[in-house]
Amino acid sequence: MSLTGRHILSIDPFTREDLEQLLTIAQRLEPVARRKYRCDVLNGAMLANLFFEASTRTRMSFHTAFARLGGNIVDTTGFTFSSISKGESLEDTARVIAGYADTIVMRHPDQGSVAQFAAPINTPVINAGDGTGEHPSQALLDYYTISAEFSRLGKTIDGMTIAMCGDLKHGRTIHSLCKLLSLFNNITFKFVAPDNLRIPHSLIEHLKEKGHKVQECNHIADGLPNSDVIYATRIQRERIENGEQLEGYGEQYRINARAIENYANPEVIIMHPLPRDSREGAYDLSTDLDKLPQLAIFRQTDNGVTMRMALFAAVLGVADELESHYHHRLGYRPHCLSDNDAPFYTFS
Amino acid sequence: MSLTGRHILSIDPFTREDLEQLLTIAQRLEPVARRKYRCDVLNGAMLANLFFEASTRTRMSFHTAFARLGGNIVDTTGFTFSSISKGESLEDTARVIAGYADTIVMRHPDQGSVAQFAAPINTPVINAGDGTGEHPSQALLDYYTISAEFSRLGKTIDGMTIAMCGDLKHGRTIHSLCKLLSLFNNITFKFVAPDNLRIPHSLIEHLKEKGHKVQECNHIADGLPNSDVIYATRIQRERIENGEQLEGYGEQYRINARAIENYANPEVIIMHPLPRDSREGAYDLSTDLDKLPQLAIFRQTDNGVTMRMALFAAVLGVADELESHYHHRLGYRPHCLSDNDAPFYTFS
Amino acid sequence: MSLTGRHILSIDPFTREDLEQLLTIAQRLEPVARRKYRCDVLNGAMLANLFFEASTRTRMSFHTAFARLGGNIVDTTGFTFSSISKGESLEDTARVIAGYADTIVMRHPDQGSVAQFAAPINTPVINAGDGTGEHPSQALLDYYTISAEFSRLGKTIDGMTIAMCGDLKHGRTIHSLCKLLSLFNNITFKFVAPDNLRIPHSLIEHLKEKGHKVQECNHIADGLPNSDVIYATRIQRERIENGEQLEGYGEQYRINARAIENYANPEVIIMHPLPRDSREGAYDLSTDLDKLPQLAIFRQTDNGVTMRMALFAAVLGVADELESHYHHRLGYRPHCLSDNDAPFYTFS
Repeated sequence: MSLTGRHILSIDPFTREDLEQLLTIAQRLEPVARRKYRCDVLNGAMLANLFFEASTRTRMSFHTAFARLGGNIVDTTGFTFSSISKGESLEDTARVIAGYADTIVMRHPDQGSVAQFAAPINTPVINAGDGTGEHPSQALLDYYTISAEFSRLGKTIDGMTIAMCGDLKHGRTIHSLCKLLSLFNNITFKFVAPDNLRIPHSLIEHLKEKGHKVQECNHIADGLPNSDVIYATRIQRERIENGEQLEGYGEQYRINARAIENYANPEVIIMHPLPRDSREGAYDLSTDLDKLPQLAIFRQTDNGVTMRMALFAAVLGVADELESHYHHRLGYRPHCLSDNDAPFYTFS
Repeated sequence: MSLTGRHILSIDPFTREDLEQLLTIAQRLEPVARRKYRCDVLNGAMLANLFFEASTRTRMSFHTAFARLGGNIVDTTGFTFSSISKGESLEDTARVIAGYADTIVMRHPDQGSVAQFAAPINTPVINAGDGTGEHPSQALLDYYTISAEFSRLGKTIDGMTIAMCGDLKHGRTIHSLCKLLSLFNNITFKFVAPDNLRIPHSLIEHLKEKGHKVQECNHIADGLPNSDVIYATRIQRERIENGEQLEGYGEQYRINARAIENYANPEVIIMHPLPRDSREGAYDLSTDLDKLPQLAIFRQTDNGVTMRMALFAAVLGVADELESHYHHRLGYRPHCLSDNDAPFYTFS
Repeated sequence: MSLTGRHILSIDPFTREDLEQLLTIAQRLEPVARRKYRCDVLNGAMLANLFFEASTRTRMSFHTAFARLGGNIVDTTGFTFSSISKGESLEDTARVIAGYADTIVMRHPDQGSVAQFAAPINTPVINAGDGTGEHPSQALLDYYTISAEFSRLGKTIDGMTIAMCGDLKHGRTIHSLCKLLSLFNNITFKFVAPDNLRIPHSLIEHLKEKGHKVQECNHIADGLPNSDVIYATRIQRERIENGEQLEGYGEQYRINARAIENYANPEVIIMHPLPRDSREGAYDLSTDLDKLPQLAIFRQTDNGVTMRMALFAAVLGVADELESHYHHRLGYRPHCLSDNDAPFYTFS
């Protein structure tokens, strides 16, 4: 497996073959993710789960994924290392922690810092988000979710149409997912955003060079029709600088049950990286969608654990021996995640 | 077992049968709690241990209980979820975490928030304290302690006399324990508190309706005689609003060795939910009691681990198969907790 | 093993025999530390890893050590216990936590507080640093590192010459290591420090009483020649009181590749407790040393995990049965730490 021993810092170096290998590993791990088996393939292995920036759900997702493979985790949730405040270089910190752990997950507020941390060490580092940079495992779990949903519907990613809505300027999730999907063939990207939150021009150029179709518009009435997937995002208020306006962001971006009924095809898959903004004046995804079976947002977070298990299995070189570490008998009652999480999943 | 798959949010829905079932499970778990065996019945299971409010000892007690059954734990000790500050609803947060964990423990400063979190999900949620609301596992461990002490003395909870002293207005521990004990028969409750820290009238009415005797007084000289249990509490200064007075709280509430000798029967059990206040001007429990064998305060915290193990076993449906997951051999030297923790326990 | 059940609070009570026993245990644990085997001797045991003061690397090192022996860990990284802020005595806190854990690691900013915490309980407590007090596991890992390096070179600690440089006044690491080395024979200590950061006179007296040679100087040109080990330290700016001067601390203390070439013997071992200060105006250890194979600073931190495993095995009484708990097969690819970490270690 070509990912063994590699740092996972960005979607850029991924090939379509890498993606398909990860997909296969994730599918094989589904019975473990759904608690039908337990797995101890990483028994004795140690994950350093380093969060220099708060992100409780992402930290928990990586932690859970490593634990479900039988490994041990040491978490760090503070915003600084005390040693760095004493003048230690990021390289020294990296080398020390590489001596403790078999793999490292790291989130940091500064773009590029995860790569800087990973550079001097051989212990595989997975980027869990570096500011406005990358968050590759999010794009991978989105890819896994689209694949799973399409498998059910008899569709393929090649030839699909996807509408991406909301804050397309600041959303690193959108950027990483576009790069990932560009590895496939003949995709139609419909970008629905106000003028000051448009997708970066360089990314549009990249998609066109790869032979994909790109459309931009200002209203979901133009973006939703004929889409196979709607990918909505939250306005990243915390990344919008003072003085930047949110002009033009309003009702025409509100994705709710009526908008789906009026504009979208009935089996469109609805996605969102979460958290969705439930406050007054937020338009990303209304809760009246929670009853629709095609709302995949919680299947995304469930799939996040499975895909991160696949990533750990790949970089630690155990993908070929997973099943020999499955154990059928669980002491506790297996709460299986259902295939349908709308409004909320129930146990089978 | 009727508790399987249920949320544990309050003492209210408990029946006497539920209590007795938990007691039986806890007794069977004693050899694990005392490190004579290790148990791996929850091997592969994941606990999300969510503390939106600091409570180190309660967090550690739940963590330890789950670990001693073989499970994995992901802790969250921050006061906020970053996703909630981005506008996510508590319901969305709950559904995401339900996908990570097999059971969830949650403490939150706001009354009712744990129930709100639990409402949309099937993953069992245990309330570890929600502000002035409930803290059911504390009442359950107190019940377990009284049962264990009475078993030694040949007494029963039916017909007992209990003196509750201190801050009876703000102490959710007291309120939950009263509700729990009300499921038994013919108890005499003696409430010893200054006038402005009296037990809520509604609770007195509830106890009387259930056929129990209630006495209120202002001096331990009236409350302690003939009691089988003294349950002291700390003045919850952090819950007393500005302007509320502590008038009338003084020497007549000081429970120390002399007070026990002067007023109490010699085998009275002395309890406290901890922490006790060791500062000047605090009167809850003097350290000169530490030499008395009937001081049960550290047996209470030891029992907390055992009772929480029982709760996890019950809600996760493994109570019937515990012993088949016991393993006799421990690599490390088993440090058994003694039956007597005064002044401090010693290893057997 | 005489360390079983003992608190490890200081280097003072250690005998040369204790040291040699720990060294033997650590050597036997090397295959586990290097991931050639996994070990489950502490399966079912619980460590309470209590950090009242931030020290991410030390916390991770103890956590990793306990996990690599198969045990469970509950971490506490906050600066205060909420119960202590409610008036609880440190003794009560200790007794409660002793009921949760089989061993306790504790760091606290106040000298003596770890000993105060340990006094009333039998659960073994390991001091992970108490302010300007002790940090015994650091001295032990330094001892282990010197032993390992000397073993390679055919040298012995008896008769060695060691140059200690930098802030010899505030560095508890230096003080503990001097006390430890004083148990050996005929050592020459060369202390290189500016006048206001000199080693305490009482420590010099102690070393002389034990029959060792002591030299003090102000320039590495005098300290480095003929040394077998150079032990450099960071100026502990956070412990230097306002008004204290750093006069006289400058270029004559800079240890870099040229200083080693000019003044030191070619096979001198270069050590540092880390973090080293990489900021402008810091002179402890230059990064141009990273290419020298005798730079042992990252072997020190790697050895820290091994020595802490040995400490846990010793205090928990499992040193005699380690090998029977080794399991050859690892699911994941074993990333072996190399013998040479300069510039950074590579996998074998």
